[in-house]
Amino acid sequence: MFSSIIVNVCLLLGVSSSCWGNRQETWVDEKLARDTQPSKWGSLWPLPQRVDIFDVSFKLAAASFQIFDGNTSSAGPSCNLLQNAYRRYYKYMFGGAKSKQPHTQDAFPELMGLQVLITDPNPECDQYPSVSSDESYELLVDQPIAILKAPKVWGALHGLETFSQLVYEDEFGAKSVNWTQISDFPRFAHRGILLDTSRHFLPVKVILTNLETMAMNKFNVFHWHIVDDQSFPYMSRTFPDLSQKGAYHPYTHVYTPSDVKMIVEFARLRGIRVIPEFDTPGHTQSWGKGQADLLTPCFAGAEPSGSFGPVNPILNTSYDFMSRLFQEVAAVFPDNYVHLGGDEVDFTCWKSNPDIQKFMEKQGFGKNYSKLESFYIQRLLDIVTSTKKGYIIWQEVFDNGVKLKPDTVVHVWMGGANSADELRNVTAAGFTAILSAPWYLNYISYAQDWVQYYKVEPLSFNGTEAQKKLVMGGEACMWGEYVDATNLTPRLWPRASAVAERLWSAKDVTDVNDAYARLSSHRCRLVERGIAAEPLFSSYCPHEFKGI
Amino acid sequence: MFSSIIVNVCLLLGVSSSCWGNRQETWVDEKLARDTQPSKWGSLWPLPQRVDIFDVSFKLAAASFQIFDGNTSSAGPSCNLLQNAYRRYYKYMFGGAKSKQPHTQDAFPELMGLQVLITDPNPECDQYPSVSSDESYELLVDQPIAILKAPKVWGALHGLETFSQLVYEDEFGAKSVNWTQISDFPRFAHRGILLDTSRHFLPVKVILTNLETMAMNKFNVFHWHIVDDQSFPYMSRTFPDLSQKGAYHPYTHVYTPSDVKMIVEFARLRGIRVIPEFDTPGHTQSWGKGQADLLTPCFAGAEPSGSFGPVNPILNTSYDFMSRLFQEVAAVFPDNYVHLGGDEVDFTCWKSNPDIQKFMEKQGFGKNYSKLESFYIQRLLDIVTSTKKGYIIWQEVFDNGVKLKPDTVVHVWMGGANSADELRNVTAAGFTAILSAPWYLNYISYAQDWVQYYKVEPLSFNGTEAQKKLVMGGEACMWGEYVDATNLTPRLWPRASAVAERLWSAKDVTDVNDAYARLSSHRCRLVERGIAAEPLFSSYCPHEFKGI
Repeated sequence: MFSSIIVNVCLLLGVSSSCWGNRQETWVDEKLARDTQPSKWGSLWPLPQRVDIFDVSFKLAAASFQIFDGNTSSAGPSCNLLQNAYRRYYKYMFGGAKSKQPHTQDAFPELMGLQVLITDPNPECDQYPSVSSDESYELLVDQPIAILKAPKVWGALHGLETFSQLVYEDEFGAKSVNWTQISDFPRFAHRGILLDTSRHFLPVKVILTNLETMAMNKFNVFHWHIVDDQSFPYMSRTFPDLSQKGAYHPYTHVYTPSDVKMIVEFARLRGIRVIPEFDTPGHTQSWGKGQADLLTPCFAGAEPSGSFGPVNPILNTSYDFMSRLFQEVAAVFPDNYVHLGGDEVDFTCWKSNPDIQKFMEKQGFGKNYSKLESFYIQRLLDIVTSTKKGYIIWQEVFDNGVKLKPDTVVHVWMGGANSADELRNVTAAGFTAILSAPWYLNYISYAQDWVQYYKVEPLSFNGTEAQKKLVMGGEACMWGEYVDATNLTPRLWPRASAVAERLWSAKDVTDVNDAYARLSSHRCRLVERGIAAEPLFSSYCPHEFKGI
Repeated sequence: MFSSIIVNVCLLLGVSSSCWGNRQETWVDEKLARDTQPSKWGSLWPLPQRVDIFDVSFKLAAASFQIFDGNTSSAGPSCNLLQNAYRRYYKYMFGGAKSKQPHTQDAFPELMGLQVLITDPNPECDQYPSVSSDESYELLVDQPIAILKAPKVWGALHGLETFSQLVYEDEFGAKSVNWTQISDFPRFAHRGILLDTSRHFLPVKVILTNLETMAMNKFNVFHWHIVDDQSFPYMSRTFPDLSQKGAYHPYTHVYTPSDVKMIVEFARLRGIRVIPEFDTPGHTQSWGKGQADLLTPCFAGAEPSGSFGPVNPILNTSYDFMSRLFQEVAAVFPDNYVHLGGDEVDFTCWKSNPDIQKFMEKQGFGKNYSKLESFYIQRLLDIVTSTKKGYIIWQEVFDNGVKLKPDTVVHVWMGGANSADELRNVTAAGFTAILSAPWYLNYISYAQDWVQYYKVEPLSFNGTEAQKKLVMGGEACMWGEYVDATNLTPRLWPRASAVAERLWSAKDVTDVNDAYARLSSHRCRLVERGIAAEPLFSSYCPHEFKGI
């Protein structure tokens, strides 16, 4: 069973133990490959919460197999989200259109179709997903019709992906699936990927490809770090000069309002939230090009030096600007949250500026520029609160003692062992948290680093059960200094898949050898679906990447 | 001048010095970008030996611009190699077909065409390049017709690439070129890229793309590490079972004789030699699947363990096999050299085998298994010599004292500072050498590692001038454990471009800032030509990669 899907792993095992890597320290990876058996879970990724697979298989006829709404489903033909998903997954499973073969009854038991049943009166077909969306589903694969049940469409999307992962080709190439029962739901509600479109512009097509791949891995948040020092590609209706002057190019390197709308809808159809980040007061060099007086003028001695620092926190015009910008952002991005950044504010420029110095004195901040930063952030949070959005902020904002709304999400990114302390402190203060510190995938190294991402346990910090419940999930980050359309996809996938399983599957799913077997097959499936996901180690896929 | 080509560098410079990398140790790279000025050499890469560019520009009209043979050229219309190259470079410079615009004389001075003149009586149109091929050329870009002179077609190919690198778009998008005089030739005759098609199979298309990119960087050797432990994709006419049983898949993961022929011709048309490597006696696990008794049976105590070691050096059948295989290889691959490997032979299995032990005694080798290895290699070298080929071997073969023909090339790969000692020893013994030790590009790390490849000086070892002349060049190696069609191109380019300039340009071309400016533009040119070359650092290209 699962024969063709896992053939690459089998071949790996066929290589003798004495064939070590040429000229390289690949011993650990050789051992991993050698010790790995095909998984009893086939190529499922991420592993569902409960799975039973029996050694009884059914055949699927491409010409007649149907994915259809159950009679009692609350979602009918008008539910575009599901109808689109049926077509997408049919193609994943069967490839392009098949000529209608006359159907000959043969000796094999056949699976005729997959019935999709949305059980909640409100299927949420036309809604946006949120952190509290129900993503659970149940799947029973048995003759004559498999049944996928989910309270909401979000669970149905995940169930379709899971069903497609169960289908394999037998030794004659016949599409097959085994008797299977699955009950599934995510361990964490927030499972994100951060992409950075400021250090390098990412064409819309690249973003869409990434969203598709996210859905194949059950990620549900696209954290769009859309602007930064280097460029401002977001085309604002309110402040068109921001991209006109701050983008790498005002026409070819911008996201128009319709680009954004398309990306948001493409994501929604895959159960993915789009959370934009407009990071201030630091990381805003590109903002200054299109908005006079927004940034702090730096001084060299008594004279302005000509360069600029973070957003100028002492001018009312700065807050007027932010108010209008975030009103627009709140309207353009339907998600309930925006990410406000707040990280890595460099005080050098503020310190050099005599007006800032005076302001500090007047406010009684002494020499503590963190207080000035907090002053700015506090006003910004009030502005964003007035737009009815919740907010996510990088951990510095919490660390600096800014007063935060109870529903604030604190994004933990600072590296190493300290991230556990940070999670403890954040949740002890009653805030929800997202973890990214161990998952900075832009950092690359030789050999299989997915294992280190996989081994992370987000709840390993010291804290009460109530505290642990405040960890909403995590995000894999792909910062853009060294990444653009040429290398994003293979650098991100399947390394991010390791994070996907950590955030979706049960806590005790930690067997690296089993993961290696499933992930090897999963990455070949991604390649077969046209995604340039890179290999884990010496191996092959039945269908190699054709996209070059 | 050079305005549009280098616009990405200019933009980089426009970014304020206070915009440091988000959450990353990118200080060095920030500084590099900040300190870099546009190069006075525009986007030339690798930098020619002598260049004069003046601030006088001419326009090129796509509809009428011609690349044509000079009257006195020894290569005429029957020289397919050049005719193909004219078409290729026309497309690189002007894109697709242009409708014939009526030609209106305007105020700009115009360059009407490029005349290509092969000066040697034998242009070598239909020959294969070799290590002694003349690759020099001279280029004069002046009204009304630019002139490219080269003794042989090989220099003309390089000159066409250089000419195409001189063409830029002015601010109105008009194709332009400056008055330029160039006299150029390579510093080293052997400038190679190693690709490994055993750890992962690389589809033919990927290999061809790489050959195209090599030509854009003036590389002239494709070192094809075609088989190894993991798989045997070379389809042998003499021993079809080798790939039938030893490839990852006998139909979809093999190189047929016509594939090989096509690759060799595609390379020849670009002035690139194809040197195949059939590495023995180690690295041969996959060989054993299709050739009984070729590999040494390993023993566990008194019984065969079922696993196999290196080629069995004590059987005459092994040498009969090698003799027939290398006769075929000599016929299939026209290059004067084959690479015989000879690296990393693991003695464990040999030591375990009682027949080998007896043979060692009989030969008086004692416990010195290096002597057995040398015994094997010696016989193999005699076999290959009888095919009239020269050979390249990895450094261990030299280190172990095997008697080598005077024209043997020793390939230095063992890392670190020792490679200088090795080069000294190899050349002191009178052998030619190729350097790869500092250029293992399969090793990846965060941030701009091209600089470390760029800073290598191959002749820094202690030795006489005569010894230094024995260093033929070097190769950048991309071993395949973690690389396949999904990630090869962005992982190799433009990192290998750094090696290309080191091996082509004059010894004193070492200014990293100047290189950064030119390489940034060069990589954008690669992207515009459809090659997924990854970025050096935060930046943009006027035409981003469209291939995803």
